[in-house]
Amino acid sequence: MSYALILLAHGSSDSRWRAPFEQFRDALVPRLDTPIRLAYMELCDPSLEDSVAQLASAGITQIEVLPLFFAAGRHLRNDVPAQIEQIAHGHEGLDITLLAPVGEHPDFIAALATAVADQVGESLHSQR
Amino acid sequence: MSYALILLAHGSSDSRWRAPFEQFRDALVPRLDTPIRLAYMELCDPSLEDSVAQLASAGITQIEVLPLFFAAGRHLRNDVPAQIEQIAHGHEGLDITLLAPVGEHPDFIAALATAVADQVGESLHSQR
Repeated sequence: MSYALILLAHGSSDSRWRAPFEQFRDALVPRLDTPIRLAYMELCDPSLEDSVAQLASAGITQIEVLPLFFAAGRHLRNDVPAQIEQIAHGHEGLDITLLAPVGEHPDFIAALATAVADQVGESLHSQR
Repeated sequence: MSYALILLAHGSSDSRWRAPFEQFRDALVPRLDTPIRLAYMELCDPSLEDSVAQLASAGITQIEVLPLFFAAGRHLRNDVPAQIEQIAHGHEGLDITLLAPVGEHPDFIAALATAVADQVGESLHSQR
């Protein structure tokens, strides 16, 4: 079984919007011994569909999709599962799993709180 | 000068969407010695406008708005600055500053990469 991870971001019509996701992917790649792709739900390339097709043609048989979202709303509860179901239809034998969004992970909440407290604390300190 | 921090999330029609943001606020409050409010750009209460009004009536004169967004697209480059300009008109002497989104902060990128690498690494380990 050959595994890959897809980081799924929302997508935006503003091309500058992609930079933090690309930086995050670049920070993650050296930390994990597995193929990693960045894909977008809408409005940006590459799409989830194209990314899955590319991985499948490279022999990947198991894909986990990690949403780079703070929370699960309509997109992650309805739109993305429907997208994945449709994509899976076109790739027999490929296992695609949608993970919980990073924002629901307790480590993420704690890491974010520490990063923000440091940032805002410094800003407050420099103003006083 | 009396300062407060507003954490600004996007908002969703799905009420379950709010939980990670509330958890994050609750994790941040004990780390910072300053009033902290959570507000939503759209679709959820409390709105940014109501949160600013509440803080202003409590004597706050300086507010920083920290977007809990991964990246700045149309919302943070156009919609939210327009919202803030309009809100500021109604509160003379109140200083409201929009900060960069948390996703653009280098500490955030690193913290997220560590949290995700741990999570996905554990998942991979348990599958092998």
